[in-house]
Amino acid sequence: MAYNLLKGKRGIIFGALDENSIAWKTAERVHEEGGTFVLTNAPIAMRMGSIKQLAEKTNAQIIPADATNLEDLEKLVEESMEILGGKIDFVLHSIGMSINVRKGRAYTDQNYDWTHKGLDVSAMSFHRVMQTLHKKDAMNEWGSIVALTYMAAQRVFPDYNDMADNKAYLESVARSFGYFFGKDRKVRVNTISQSPTPTTAGKGVKGFDAFINYAEKMSPLGNATALECADYTVTLFSDLTKKVTLQNLFHDGGFSNVGVSQEVIEKFE
Amino acid sequence: MAYNLLKGKRGIIFGALDENSIAWKTAERVHEEGGTFVLTNAPIAMRMGSIKQLAEKTNAQIIPADATNLEDLEKLVEESMEILGGKIDFVLHSIGMSINVRKGRAYTDQNYDWTHKGLDVSAMSFHRVMQTLHKKDAMNEWGSIVALTYMAAQRVFPDYNDMADNKAYLESVARSFGYFFGKDRKVRVNTISQSPTPTTAGKGVKGFDAFINYAEKMSPLGNATALECADYTVTLFSDLTKKVTLQNLFHDGGFSNVGVSQEVIEKFE
Amino acid sequence: MAYNLLKGKRGIIFGALDENSIAWKTAERVHEEGGTFVLTNAPIAMRMGSIKQLAEKTNAQIIPADATNLEDLEKLVEESMEILGGKIDFVLHSIGMSINVRKGRAYTDQNYDWTHKGLDVSAMSFHRVMQTLHKKDAMNEWGSIVALTYMAAQRVFPDYNDMADNKAYLESVARSFGYFFGKDRKVRVNTISQSPTPTTAGKGVKGFDAFINYAEKMSPLGNATALECADYTVTLFSDLTKKVTLQNLFHDGGFSNVGVSQEVIEKFE
Amino acid sequence: MAYNLLKGKRGIIFGALDENSIAWKTAERVHEEGGTFVLTNAPIAMRMGSIKQLAEKTNAQIIPADATNLEDLEKLVEESMEILGGKIDFVLHSIGMSINVRKGRAYTDQNYDWTHKGLDVSAMSFHRVMQTLHKKDAMNEWGSIVALTYMAAQRVFPDYNDMADNKAYLESVARSFGYFFGKDRKVRVNTISQSPTPTTAGKGVKGFDAFINYAEKMSPLGNATALECADYTVTLFSDLTKKVTLQNLFHDGGFSNVGVSQEVIEKFE
Repeated sequence: MAYNLLKGKRGIIFGALDENSIAWKTAERVHEEGGTFVLTNAPIAMRMGSIKQLAEKTNAQIIPADATNLEDLEKLVEESMEILGGKIDFVLHSIGMSINVRKGRAYTDQNYDWTHKGLDVSAMSFHRVMQTLHKKDAMNEWGSIVALTYMAAQRVFPDYNDMADNKAYLESVARSFGYFFGKDRKVRVNTISQSPTPTTAGKGVKGFDAFINYAEKMSPLGNATALECADYTVTLFSDLTKKVTLQNLFHDGGFSNVGVSQEVIEKFE
Repeated sequence: MAYNLLKGKRGIIFGALDENSIAWKTAERVHEEGGTFVLTNAPIAMRMGSIKQLAEKTNAQIIPADATNLEDLEKLVEESMEILGGKIDFVLHSIGMSINVRKGRAYTDQNYDWTHKGLDVSAMSFHRVMQTLHKKDAMNEWGSIVALTYMAAQRVFPDYNDMADNKAYLESVARSFGYFFGKDRKVRVNTISQSPTPTTAGKGVKGFDAFINYAEKMSPLGNATALECADYTVTLFSDLTKKVTLQNLFHDGGFSNVGVSQEVIEKFE
Repeated sequence: MAYNLLKGKRGIIFGALDENSIAWKTAERVHEEGGTFVLTNAPIAMRMGSIKQLAEKTNAQIIPADATNLEDLEKLVEESMEILGGKIDFVLHSIGMSINVRKGRAYTDQNYDWTHKGLDVSAMSFHRVMQTLHKKDAMNEWGSIVALTYMAAQRVFPDYNDMADNKAYLESVARSFGYFFGKDRKVRVNTISQSPTPTTAGKGVKGFDAFINYAEKMSPLGNATALECADYTVTLFSDLTKKVTLQNLFHDGGFSNVGVSQEVIEKFE
Repeated sequence: MAYNLLKGKRGIIFGALDENSIAWKTAERVHEEGGTFVLTNAPIAMRMGSIKQLAEKTNAQIIPADATNLEDLEKLVEESMEILGGKIDFVLHSIGMSINVRKGRAYTDQNYDWTHKGLDVSAMSFHRVMQTLHKKDAMNEWGSIVALTYMAAQRVFPDYNDMADNKAYLESVARSFGYFFGKDRKVRVNTISQSPTPTTAGKGVKGFDAFINYAEKMSPLGNATALECADYTVTLFSDLTKKVTLQNLFHDGGFSNVGVSQEVIEKFE
């Protein structure tokens, strides 16, 4: 069901890889709600994924961009405004990658070149995106910027490795930049801290199945799906949440505020 | 502008006193979004306010109820389901009162009978409302319950007095009951922690003008208004936020995550 | 091992029931560190416990007092200053009780008279103690007041029932009163959020064994014991922590900041 | 006054520049409490400061080390164990630097090479130190590692610039590594979030005087000094806090939990 919540709004969506992606679902839902947007992803991710199908389905154009490269981002922002016919109202940042995780390095045995690279891709990229938008005065007043994060930024999930620290950095960037973007341009910036989600990226993490099962049993309403996250993101892009900013918003069926559930405790009896 | 976000949904709205009330604005916005509801308030509050005008405007019926009285609440819930033609989808709890504040008693000089009474009205009432709904199996699956709160539950605002502790209790009740309501009936429970708002109740607090001025200068987007709070509440009642539960959601233009703003620091130079 | 950390300091310790009590261990450790104090407990608790042995061992006098009764508290404070020979430097509040828990009432089926009574004993008593100390100007500058709490104030532990809400209230009182006690008398007020501890009271909670086992496996350093809590409390009473105030301090082997441990996740594989 | 709290304990202290440094005060207090240690700092910082005086006063040896260089850190850890005659019991990380701040770049106009460099020095260095200690099995059981941080990791202080994000990363590293160091070696890891402190580094930040004045007026007990921070650190190195881990501990006279103070609100009347 659609409500025309984003009619007339223009945006940029980062990180749609395939139909399991939260960014993919968000693009679909934003399209249903009347928003128009440009899709973007790293050139390498675009070769692996199926973003063209999504672009066709949502009447969107694709602009490849490496989110760690300022020239790419400048070009992306400029071309997006041209294509969409005006300034930007919403942005979704859904980008994350740890080479230490991919290569199986323990958290206590990091390769710091990889740690820096992972931070650059997963977190500093969010700063770069906002700095580019800010410098180009590319956001409309009361625009909304959202990045996806995970609760490992607050609490330890051992297999999440250096992505935990990347997400802590990302959330801090949301607050810090959100202050200036709010004061200067009335733009809000928030992060959504989503349940573990069986995306193509997520499923690659060691022990993911056990973890998603655990989270499901801890959450009073069960894990939030990618589609539900897309729905929630739509509300944050809409005009109904204009004064929500600098927040990290848990979208997790209640997991974050449960100390232990009945189902979990029973495993220890 | 309206989106039909609450079409077909039925609810109960506590605490609309007059047109400055957040509950009043919420009732208007819910009505615009297609929801139907019963309005309720304490008999004494109803005599003081102008709730009848609101009821006419929103095609709502009024059922007086003392939220500290279980019989009143049982009657309210039963009659609401009859009037609305089915189970309840959304509830707004916007009730708060401190006799210590009204009588000018310092926080370090409480009258504990008044402290208990204020807690009963402001916080335990929320438990009573939910317990009544739960026992009567009166909530639809994926229903949404929201209570209004204030950041004094986390940080000290000296003039807020024992309302701070009442709000801390209220937020805890939201989490605790939210767990069971989630597990048992797939109902979500959240609190909105709103900017200081010049409602008729709020304006009575000592030093309120200075405080709202300070909050305005601390918040990157400025204070959130009652109408904006109503908009936000609509999103939490809608089907787009089904997995948000047990959360305390700051709706405050960013105040909660600002340590100090440029405007405030300049007063200390 | 002892360090003379509390030499010359005078205090009041609430809630020592028997040798499993955290308050009991704290009294022993404070005595070893050179502090002198009065022991107090509710008359009924004193009949059940063995506080006289503790008093003999620590050269302490006992003054029975119902912590919900202002006259008892006034008498306690006055007599303590007489006995100890001066104003008070430290106070431990270790009091908690829920009739709903004792009587086996579910959280969704509360008897609200019992809820009020439990709140009065477990949380409002902390306000009463501080208000009495404040009015009588009974605290020395740089004195330290500590109350014991539990993480159910932040996250749901289903069997903790209305004690969760009581602890949320207690922690709020620590902040609220701590502000005024700090400004007015340079007294600090904090809460320690302790691991589940097999005290005589704790062991009575339903499912306690499973829970303590779960907490042990979640905590990188294992659960904190009552003796370790006593050690930690000694540091908070000492002159080495003068600027720590309004804080809720987790003393739990790391539990509070772990999302899931390897041992717990393995149960879900 | 000293208590012998650290008698027989061996440690490494990073970041003592001059007598205003928190690390300097900590070294003095640790020495008074009976601990022995190696002092270390970056070669460039050592030329600017007066660390040799501190070394003489505390009978400590100095080992220069760049905390972003693993070889330096390996050498530091090995030589420290040799000099001190055994494994390490305590470590203080007090290192921070932002080139963007030094060069006057706004947060919305970062030079990302500088951002990476600042993160490396201020935050990733903490991971490097711990990874080196962990790999070399250089910590004794129940050892304690502390890093200094600032509340800008949670809330925006506009002039704090990218140091805010660095501190968020640092605090996340404390949790993440603390989990593994706890499980593997029973070592605790915490951060102290200190009041703004007029160190030589701190005083260089734009608007520092106004800020310290503001913080003083917001804090019920006033700002915490460097010496008080040293005292608090001593408690965290002692055997009295064995089960405190993964925590970020505010040492700030109560600032962190005050929404507004009477003195501040009066500026807005």
